[in-house]
Amino acid sequence: MKFSPLFWPIELKGREIYILDETKLPHSLTYIKAKDYKQAAQAIKQMKTRAVGQVLLVFYVFLQAIRKNKNADLKKIARAINSTRPTLSFRYLTDMVLGWAKSGAPLEKCILGFLEKLKEARIRQAEEASKLVKDGDVILTHCNVSGSMPLIGKFCRKHGKRVSFFTTETRPYLQGLRLSAWELQRAGFEVTLITDNMVGAVMSLKKVNKVIVGADHLARNGDIANKIGTYQIAVLAKHFHLPFYVLCPPASKVKTGKEIKIELRPEKEMLEFAGKRIAPAGIKGYYPAFDITPRELITKHILLEIK
Amino acid sequence: MKFSPLFWPIELKGREIYILDETKLPHSLTYIKAKDYKQAAQAIKQMKTRAVGQVLLVFYVFLQAIRKNKNADLKKIARAINSTRPTLSFRYLTDMVLGWAKSGAPLEKCILGFLEKLKEARIRQAEEASKLVKDGDVILTHCNVSGSMPLIGKFCRKHGKRVSFFTTETRPYLQGLRLSAWELQRAGFEVTLITDNMVGAVMSLKKVNKVIVGADHLARNGDIANKIGTYQIAVLAKHFHLPFYVLCPPASKVKTGKEIKIELRPEKEMLEFAGKRIAPAGIKGYYPAFDITPRELITKHILLEIK
Repeated sequence: MKFSPLFWPIELKGREIYILDETKLPHSLTYIKAKDYKQAAQAIKQMKTRAVGQVLLVFYVFLQAIRKNKNADLKKIARAINSTRPTLSFRYLTDMVLGWAKSGAPLEKCILGFLEKLKEARIRQAEEASKLVKDGDVILTHCNVSGSMPLIGKFCRKHGKRVSFFTTETRPYLQGLRLSAWELQRAGFEVTLITDNMVGAVMSLKKVNKVIVGADHLARNGDIANKIGTYQIAVLAKHFHLPFYVLCPPASKVKTGKEIKIELRPEKEMLEFAGKRIAPAGIKGYYPAFDITPRELITKHILLEIK
Repeated sequence: MKFSPLFWPIELKGREIYILDETKLPHSLTYIKAKDYKQAAQAIKQMKTRAVGQVLLVFYVFLQAIRKNKNADLKKIARAINSTRPTLSFRYLTDMVLGWAKSGAPLEKCILGFLEKLKEARIRQAEEASKLVKDGDVILTHCNVSGSMPLIGKFCRKHGKRVSFFTTETRPYLQGLRLSAWELQRAGFEVTLITDNMVGAVMSLKKVNKVIVGADHLARNGDIANKIGTYQIAVLAKHFHLPFYVLCPPASKVKTGKEIKIELRPEKEMLEFAGKRIAPAGIKGYYPAFDITPRELITKHILLEIK
């Protein structure tokens, strides 16, 4: 099965990490190079890569470091990575690597083995999600789930089920428009774009009949943090009696969504468009990058099970 | 009390109608001239003016026509106006003018008298709305209610009540960002801009405690048609137990919202930004310009009572 470039957007070739520059999509499929963990941390802060790309980047950064220098300062790298973004919990990833290193296991083998298991788990997760889809379904998605949506579609197709998609554009970064619409259409699926304020209308008109989104963070009680706008789609799905499915990462140590710190991004990112200010002078913006969807609004968590 | 330019965006000077070009806001306060009803109908189709501006334009078009020629073909003008946009019911306005003409009443006097009453009614409507606001309230609004929101704020201020605003940006035309944020800030109110997908998050975080929106169409049963996105805000307000108030025009002859035809706008308006395509090639867009909010989600209709 062919994957979306977003499914595995990071590669390590020799001593350089290649990062799919998601901010350049859909206009160009460009990779930027990171020579070390500092450049990689910068790419995370600038959101050149996101979600699964960021997770992969964490592992590749350590792999790159030990290939360059067997005695690399892994703790320093872990600290740099952990401080990039508040809502995302990179800590459990960096702790995992530090744990392997401490145990004395061969680190390169541990990392490569884990990445292989992660890939298998992501494929299984998409297959599990595809089992919830019925022939003729129209799935609404939001933001981008790093190549999982086209993979779900391909599993449906494999089992003879027709499926099409609606995606929100996902302001302010337009990941739905730039990434999800692009990768779904590229994989041969019918995809219709809506603005974020059309969700209620398309649900009421029965143009979509299921919601599948991703999650950046899963708390132990089942609450999730995901791209801003996810919460209100969950409320709308409940109002219109539509199932709301979430592709989740492994649960973090956090007990409930209330403990997840929400990253406030610079307001200029929403007051500008393509580098040009669109808002009237002097207007304030408020830009929480994520919101917390409480577990009671989630019909089913589709877990990532790394075996 | 000083009005927002959006409160009365049309004027007739001599034989030319001056139309506030709302598509140029907030960057410039420009008026375009319409020499006749054809140019006026064009301005409506191109959404140079909207909502109250369109209503006023209907009357000014007839006034202009009879000033130019006492025997102008009023029915022809009515037909041209009625065919501009499907969701908005201009029919009752053009019927009103044709009725006055048929009755033999002095038409200019009837039109000017009606416009004066309309202005008074709009001021009273804003004052009524201001009575629902408590000291310290933060009001969420959507799209633009043609100068009524700053007027509500001014009535609050007059009665010693502090009030501030959040507005959605209102994709794809950005009327919230370009018009509401602009006019509210111009009138000295604190206003915070959010993208359309942040409504659920700001409600859950208790950053707003009331919703006030306008309506383009009021059905006899209390259902309303308003800018796309209104419906889902009403659902969210209900979920978060916030009052949802609607400034309404007089009810049309339509029984329920189901009978209101929703205008589908050209998809390029949502797939482009500032004339440049932002969506990947080949993606379909779906762009209903309005949605129907059922009456059961409306806490109170604030009626426009033309006496």
